[in-house]
Amino acid sequence: MSTNVLRTADGWWVVLGDRAVPVDTKAVTTAELLADRSAVHEAAASGEPGTPVVDLVALSPVTTPCRVVAQMVNYRSHARDSGFKGDVPPTFFRKASGSVSGPGDAVVRPSHVKFLDYEIELGLVMGAPLPVGTVVEERDLPSYVAGLVITNDVSAREVQLTKTQFYESKSYPTFTPTGPFLTLLEPDDFAHLPDLRLKLSVNGELRQDRTLADMIVRPAQALTLLARFQTLDAGDLLLTGTPGGTALKAPPKAVEKIGALLPPAVKWKAFFKSQAKNPHYLSPGDVITATIATPDGRIDLGEQRTPVAAAN
Amino acid sequence: MSTNVLRTADGWWVVLGDRAVPVDTKAVTTAELLADRSAVHEAAASGEPGTPVVDLVALSPVTTPCRVVAQMVNYRSHARDSGFKGDVPPTFFRKASGSVSGPGDAVVRPSHVKFLDYEIELGLVMGAPLPVGTVVEERDLPSYVAGLVITNDVSAREVQLTKTQFYESKSYPTFTPTGPFLTLLEPDDFAHLPDLRLKLSVNGELRQDRTLADMIVRPAQALTLLARFQTLDAGDLLLTGTPGGTALKAPPKAVEKIGALLPPAVKWKAFFKSQAKNPHYLSPGDVITATIATPDGRIDLGEQRTPVAAAN
Repeated sequence: MSTNVLRTADGWWVVLGDRAVPVDTKAVTTAELLADRSAVHEAAASGEPGTPVVDLVALSPVTTPCRVVAQMVNYRSHARDSGFKGDVPPTFFRKASGSVSGPGDAVVRPSHVKFLDYEIELGLVMGAPLPVGTVVEERDLPSYVAGLVITNDVSAREVQLTKTQFYESKSYPTFTPTGPFLTLLEPDDFAHLPDLRLKLSVNGELRQDRTLADMIVRPAQALTLLARFQTLDAGDLLLTGTPGGTALKAPPKAVEKIGALLPPAVKWKAFFKSQAKNPHYLSPGDVITATIATPDGRIDLGEQRTPVAAAN
Repeated sequence: MSTNVLRTADGWWVVLGDRAVPVDTKAVTTAELLADRSAVHEAAASGEPGTPVVDLVALSPVTTPCRVVAQMVNYRSHARDSGFKGDVPPTFFRKASGSVSGPGDAVVRPSHVKFLDYEIELGLVMGAPLPVGTVVEERDLPSYVAGLVITNDVSAREVQLTKTQFYESKSYPTFTPTGPFLTLLEPDDFAHLPDLRLKLSVNGELRQDRTLADMIVRPAQALTLLARFQTLDAGDLLLTGTPGGTALKAPPKAVEKIGALLPPAVKWKAFFKSQAKNPHYLSPGDVITATIATPDGRIDLGEQRTPVAAAN
């Protein structure tokens, strides 16, 4: 049975229904909390009445700095949206952990960005070191992954596509809303991961809605592939890709092939001219809501609700 | 006047000609050493006879974990090699700091990699925090950059080009040989940076040879652009791009335009079939030597000498 934890300016709390009980721990970082899981269990079993969750201001339950690694194109529906035919090579990129923000904090659109997009992603929070060369079988996953979080891999599309490397476009401050809950898993919860359903709405309009059945490279294989070159430690975060439904859609194949013959600057200018008519990009004043849960509620990562704001 | 420091398993040393004097410091990390520069100056002024540098086994003078950020295509000669026409948008990517290795350690070619390439790069070692939003003018550079190191941004080209994101292809262990010296700069050394000459040879054959006059985005501007989204701290490393002369050369324009019409998997298969005849990629047994210095020796980062080995 999973356990939801949240973090506020006062420390860590265990969530029991609509109330939260403070965890008696000296842990400051997520890694430190994961090393003190008995304190979480004691708080859950304490019988204390606790505080209404709605009265708490949740911070990201993943503390920074930490490594934030993300998987490129990892849902079949998003691969179709992105114009991929055939297999997509499993690919990772980095986000700056300075982009991590709280589950209610505004996503701030930088002044040079027009094409701001959302990407709901299941975040895996590491519970143990992953040395280079590790092979992670499905049955080993509980030894490496401590819990799950909702993340939004916010993306400045004109920066992403013109620069080709995704790092900057996804690393501005507030571009990784994280939380509200860190959902700590027990080993028998892992069999239920494929039932997790990711839903993201903008101003109440459902934009993304898929289960992990649509995922291409699953967590155990993703960690094995990542461990070919990257060490992880407890408290680090792996974003596992987004399903279809983002504002960005690849141009039709014919347009793309003509575009391939143009110098890149000309191609992107034409592409973003066409995108200016796309109403799905995020604007200041929009509100994004995101949930990840199994249908039976056995695993429920809570609701993330972030407004979009313009940079000052 | 710059000061060369090196690190061994025993600690830190200041280099005085062909001898090295131990630095009396508790510093373990590069950031800690930079916070104890007076100990470096005391060692330099101590008059102790020291130890022959040739008797020391140098480790990377940049300790890990740290942030390793790199600039994509940042020399005009490399932009030409890479087939770019017109302006290249200034672009950053991340390397895993687990890829950092010593200046004499073997570069280990993973068993799945055939097209292993070298990229000599000037590494900037941060001496102070760089918060998001910082604007770094030329005259401010000494406040942020403590010193310089030779780095080799080793790249698995078939991984890099097929995955599009550079992160994995440049992050395998031993893919960032660093050192031998951390060259600490005084403020008046910075005016001499444009005279730095980067030279890389493979088995004694000169492959790369350019000065910073060929650089596109210079360090102060690079830090300003990076600080739009990424915080840095003392001890972090920025790789500033490589000049022309890598093994990889872009295909001729006509071939590239035909390639753009093919599915990516077919295009890359054809490209790497043609690259199999290119003798410039690195093979086990090769020895890479790299130097960065001003002609007058005022700034001299030493010589990096790394053999290439096959993975076990």
